Amino acid sequence: MPSHSEMEAAAHAYVRGFATSDAELIIALFADNAVIEDPLGTPPMVGGEAVRAFYTRIMADGGARLELLGPVRTAANSAAFPFASFLTRDGVEQRIDVIDVWDFDEAGKIAHMRAYWGPENVTHV
Amino acid sequence: MPSHSEMEAAAHAYVRGFATSDAELIIALFADNAVIEDPLGTPPMVGGEAVRAFYTRIMADGGARLELLGPVRTAANSAAFPFASFLTRDGVEQRIDVIDVWDFDEAGKIAHMRAYWGPENVTHV
Repeated sequence: MPSHSEMEAAAHAYVRGFATSDAELIIALFADNAVIEDPLGTPPMVGGEAVRAFYTRIMADGGARLELLGPVRTAANSAAFPFASFLTRDGVEQRIDVIDVWDFDEAGKIAHMRAYWGPENVTHV
Repeated sequence: MPSHSEMEAAAHAYVRGFATSDAELIIALFADNAVIEDPLGTPPMVGGEAVRAFYTRIMADGGARLELLGPVRTAANSAAFPFASFLTRDGVEQRIDVIDVWDFDEAGKIAHMRAYWGPENVTHV
Protein backbone atom coordinates (compact mmCIF):
# COMPACT_ATOMS: atom_id res chain seq x y z
CA MET A 1 0.00 0.00 0.00
CA PRO A 2 1.48 3.40 -0.90
CA SER A 3 2.30 5.74 1.96
CA HIS A 4 0.75 9.13 2.58
CA SER A 5 3.95 10.74 1.31
CA GLU A 6 3.92 8.72 -1.90
CA MET A 7 0.30 9.54 -2.67
CA GLU A 8 0.88 13.21 -1.80
CA ALA A 9 3.92 13.27 -4.09
CA ALA A 10 1.81 11.84 -6.92
CA ALA A 11 -0.71 14.66 -6.52
CA HIS A 12 2.06 17.25 -6.53
CA ALA A 13 3.61 15.63 -9.63
CA TYR A 14 0.23 15.83 -11.34
CA VAL A 15 0.03 19.58 -10.69
CA ARG A 16 3.64 19.99 -11.84
CA GLY A 17 2.92 18.00 -15.00
CA PHE A 18 0.23 20.50 -15.91
CA ALA A 19 2.47 23.46 -15.01
CA THR A 20 5.14 22.22 -17.43
CA SER A 21 2.75 20.76 -20.05
CA ASP A 22 4.44 17.41 -19.46
CA ALA A 23 1.88 14.79 -20.44
CA GLU A 24 4.44 11.99 -19.98
CA LEU A 25 5.00 12.90 -16.33
CA ILE A 26 1.26 12.66 -15.76
CA ILE A 27 0.75 9.45 -17.75
CA ALA A 28 3.53 7.75 -15.77
CA LEU A 29 1.48 8.17 -12.59
CA PHE A 30 -1.21 5.80 -13.87
CA ALA A 31 -1.40 2.00 -13.88
CA ASP A 32 -1.62 0.25 -17.24
CA ASN A 33 -5.20 -0.77 -16.50
CA ALA A 34 -6.25 2.54 -14.98
CA VAL A 35 -9.80 3.87 -15.14
CA ILE A 36 -10.56 7.58 -15.34
CA GLU A 37 -13.99 9.10 -14.72
CA ASP A 38 -13.68 12.85 -15.35
CA PRO A 39 -16.16 14.00 -14.35
CA LEU A 40 -17.85 11.12 -12.56
CA GLY A 41 -20.93 10.13 -14.53
CA THR A 42 -19.32 10.38 -17.96
CA PRO A 43 -18.19 7.20 -19.77
CA PRO A 44 -15.08 5.81 -18.05
CA MET A 45 -11.79 5.90 -19.93
CA VAL A 46 -10.15 2.52 -19.46
CA GLY A 47 -6.54 1.49 -19.92
CA GLY A 48 -3.19 3.03 -20.73
CA GLU A 49 -4.02 4.07 -24.28
CA ALA A 50 -7.16 5.86 -23.13
CA VAL A 51 -5.20 7.62 -20.38
CA ARG A 52 -2.53 8.67 -22.87
CA ALA A 53 -5.12 9.94 -25.37
CA PHE A 54 -6.91 11.91 -22.66
CA TYR A 55 -3.88 13.84 -21.39
CA THR A 56 -2.34 14.25 -24.83
CA ARG A 57 -5.57 15.86 -26.00
CA ILE A 58 -5.75 18.17 -22.98
CA MET A 59 -2.21 19.40 -23.62
CA ALA A 60 -2.91 19.80 -27.35
CA ASP A 61 -5.97 21.89 -26.46
CA GLY A 62 -3.81 24.31 -24.50
CA GLY A 63 -3.42 22.53 -21.19
CA ALA A 64 -4.47 23.99 -17.88
CA ARG A 65 -3.02 25.45 -14.72
CA LEU A 66 -3.90 23.54 -11.58
CA GLU A 67 -3.89 25.22 -8.19
CA LEU A 68 -4.05 23.00 -5.11
CA LEU A 69 -6.55 24.43 -2.62
CA GLY A 70 -5.61 22.50 0.49
CA PRO A 71 -3.75 19.50 1.78
CA VAL A 72 -3.88 16.11 0.12
CA ARG A 73 -6.05 13.85 2.27
CA THR A 74 -5.23 10.16 2.32
CA ALA A 75 -7.03 7.13 3.74
CA ALA A 76 -6.23 3.46 3.10
CA ASN A 77 -4.90 3.36 -0.48
CA SER A 78 -6.72 6.49 -1.64
CA ALA A 79 -6.00 10.19 -1.93
CA ALA A 80 -8.43 13.09 -2.26
CA PHE A 81 -7.54 16.71 -2.90
CA PRO A 82 -9.28 19.95 -3.87
CA PHE A 83 -8.00 22.13 -6.68
CA ALA A 84 -9.00 24.71 -9.23
CA SER A 85 -8.24 24.18 -12.90
CA PHE A 86 -7.71 27.34 -14.94
CA LEU A 87 -7.97 26.87 -18.68
CA THR A 88 -8.72 28.79 -21.84
CA ARG A 89 -10.94 27.24 -24.46
CA ASP A 90 -12.07 29.10 -27.59
CA GLY A 91 -10.68 32.29 -26.09
CA VAL A 92 -12.73 31.97 -22.93
CA GLU A 93 -10.98 31.69 -19.57
CA GLN A 94 -12.59 29.24 -17.20
CA ARG A 95 -12.06 28.17 -13.63
CA ILE A 96 -13.29 24.72 -12.64
CA ASP A 97 -13.38 23.76 -8.96
CA VAL A 98 -12.62 20.05 -8.76
CA ILE A 99 -12.01 17.35 -6.19
CA ASP A 100 -10.02 14.39 -7.43
CA VAL A 101 -10.19 11.03 -5.69
CA TRP A 102 -7.50 8.53 -6.65
CA ASP A 103 -7.36 4.86 -5.67
CA PHE A 104 -3.82 3.50 -5.88
CA ASP A 105 -2.66 -0.02 -6.61
CA GLU A 106 0.01 -1.91 -4.68
CA ALA A 107 2.71 -0.53 -7.00
CA GLY A 108 1.76 3.03 -6.08
CA LYS A 109 0.18 3.80 -9.45
CA ILE A 110 -3.25 5.38 -9.88
CA ALA A 111 -5.70 2.57 -10.59
CA HIS A 112 -8.91 4.61 -10.51
CA MET A 113 -9.43 8.34 -10.76
CA ARG A 114 -12.76 9.99 -10.11
CA ALA A 115 -13.06 13.73 -10.69
CA TYR A 116 -15.95 15.47 -8.93
CA TRP A 117 -17.15 18.60 -10.70
CA GLY A 118 -20.18 19.71 -12.63
CA PRO A 119 -21.52 22.71 -14.56
CA GLU A 120 -22.16 24.58 -11.30
CA ASN A 121 -18.44 24.32 -10.50
CA VAL A 122 -17.42 26.15 -13.69
CA THR A 123 -16.98 29.91 -13.57
CA HIS A 124 -15.70 32.40 -16.12
CA VAL A 125 -12.73 34.39 -14.89
CA MET B 1 -31.31 12.05 -9.05
CA PRO B 2 -30.81 14.94 -6.62
CA SER B 3 -29.83 18.30 -8.09
CA HIS B 4 -26.62 20.17 -7.40
CA SER B 5 -28.58 22.55 -5.16
CA GLU B 6 -30.07 19.70 -3.15
CA MET B 7 -26.71 18.01 -2.60
CA GLU B 8 -25.10 21.34 -1.73
CA ALA B 9 -27.89 22.06 0.74
CA ALA B 10 -27.29 18.68 2.39
CA ALA B 11 -23.61 19.53 2.89
CA HIS B 12 -24.52 22.91 4.37
CA ALA B 13 -27.08 21.26 6.66
CA TYR B 14 -24.41 18.84 7.83
CA VAL B 15 -22.12 21.74 8.81
CA ARG B 16 -25.05 23.49 10.50
CA GLY B 17 -25.95 20.32 12.38
CA PHE B 18 -22.49 20.29 13.90
CA ALA B 19 -22.63 24.02 14.64
CA THR B 20 -25.83 23.54 16.63
CA SER B 21 -25.00 20.07 18.06
CA ASP B 22 -28.14 18.82 16.34
CA ALA B 23 -27.57 15.12 15.75
CA GLU B 24 -31.15 14.68 14.49
CA LEU B 25 -30.62 17.19 11.68
CA ILE B 26 -27.57 15.22 10.57
CA ILE B 27 -29.14 11.77 10.93
CA ALA B 28 -32.12 12.88 8.80
CA LEU B 29 -29.76 13.43 5.87
CA PHE B 30 -28.97 9.72 5.63
CA ALA B 31 -30.88 6.87 4.00
CA ASP B 32 -32.11 4.04 6.24
CA ASN B 33 -29.59 1.67 4.67
CA ALA B 34 -26.72 4.16 4.57
CA VAL B 35 -23.08 3.12 4.79
CA ILE B 36 -20.45 5.31 6.45
CA GLU B 37 -16.71 4.82 6.08
CA ASP B 38 -15.02 7.44 8.29
CA PRO B 39 -12.20 7.36 7.53
CA LEU B 40 -12.12 5.13 4.48
CA GLY B 41 -10.36 1.90 5.43
CA THR B 42 -12.03 1.47 8.81
CA PRO B 43 -14.92 -0.98 9.24
CA PRO B 44 -18.02 0.43 7.53
CA MET B 45 -20.95 1.49 9.68
CA VAL B 46 -24.09 0.11 8.05
CA GLY B 47 -27.71 1.13 8.52
CA GLY B 48 -29.74 3.73 10.32
CA GLU B 49 -28.99 2.54 13.84
CA ALA B 50 -25.25 2.62 13.17
CA VAL B 51 -25.56 6.12 11.70
CA ARG B 52 -27.53 7.27 14.74
CA ALA B 53 -25.04 5.72 17.16
CA PHE B 54 -22.11 7.34 15.34
CA TYR B 55 -23.40 10.91 15.42
CA THR B 56 -24.94 10.59 18.88
CA ARG B 57 -21.56 9.50 20.19
CA ILE B 58 -19.75 12.37 18.45
CA MET B 59 -22.12 14.90 20.01
CA ALA B 60 -21.81 13.24 23.43
CA ASP B 61 -18.03 13.47 23.12
CA GLY B 62 -18.24 17.24 22.68
CA GLY B 63 -19.08 17.55 19.01
CA ALA B 64 -16.98 19.44 16.51
CA ARG B 65 -16.97 22.63 14.50
CA LEU B 66 -16.84 22.08 10.74
CA GLU B 67 -15.48 24.75 8.44
CA LEU B 68 -16.15 24.37 4.71
CA LEU B 69 -12.98 25.10 2.77
CA GLY B 70 -14.37 25.56 -0.71
CA PRO B 71 -17.37 24.93 -2.89
CA VAL B 72 -19.32 21.68 -2.88
CA ARG B 73 -18.46 19.79 -6.04
CA THR B 74 -21.14 17.58 -7.55
CA ALA B 75 -21.10 15.01 -10.34
CA ALA B 76 -23.81 12.51 -11.22
CA ASN B 77 -25.47 11.62 -7.87
CA SER B 78 -22.41 12.42 -5.76
CA ALA B 79 -21.04 15.38 -3.84
CA ALA B 80 -17.49 16.02 -2.63
CA PHE B 81 -16.36 18.86 -0.41
CA PRO B 82 -13.29 19.86 1.62
CA PHE B 83 -13.54 20.93 5.22
CA ALA B 84 -11.67 21.17 8.47
CA SER B 85 -13.08 19.65 11.63
CA PHE B 86 -12.08 21.36 14.87
CA LEU B 87 -12.62 19.29 17.99
CA THR B 88 -11.41 18.97 21.55
CA ARG B 89 -10.76 15.51 22.98
CA ASP B 90 -9.23 14.95 26.40
CA GLY B 91 -8.44 18.65 26.57
CA VAL B 92 -6.49 18.63 23.31
CA GLU B 93 -7.65 20.78 20.42
CA GLN B 94 -7.31 19.14 17.05
CA ARG B 95 -7.84 20.17 13.47
CA ILE B 96 -8.56 17.42 10.96
CA ASP B 97 -8.51 18.23 7.24
CA VAL B 98 -11.12 16.03 5.58
CA ILE B 99 -12.74 15.50 2.22
CA ASP B 100 -16.16 13.90 2.34
CA VAL B 101 -17.62 12.12 -0.68
CA TRP B 102 -21.32 11.35 -0.52
CA ASP B 103 -23.30 9.18 -2.93
CA PHE B 104 -27.01 10.02 -2.85
CA ASP B 105 -29.98 7.79 -3.53
CA GLU B 106 -32.95 8.70 -5.70
CA ALA B 107 -34.76 10.18 -2.69
CA GLY B 108 -31.92 12.63 -2.11
CA LYS B 109 -30.63 10.89 1.02
CA ILE B 110 -26.99 10.01 1.62
CA ALA B 111 -26.58 6.33 0.73
CA HIS B 112 -22.80 6.09 1.11
CA MET B 113 -20.36 8.41 2.82
CA ARG B 114 -16.62 8.07 2.49
CA ALA B 115 -14.43 10.39 4.57
CA TYR B 116 -10.86 10.84 3.35
CA TRP B 117 -8.40 11.71 6.10
CA GLY B 118 -5.54 10.05 7.90
CA PRO B 119 -3.08 10.69 10.73
CA GLU B 120 -1.10 13.09 8.52
CA ASN B 121 -4.21 15.26 8.19
CA VAL B 122 -4.51 15.78 11.96
CA THR B 123 -2.82 18.79 13.52
CA HIS B 124 -2.87 20.20 17.03
CA VAL B 125 -4.10 23.77 17.18
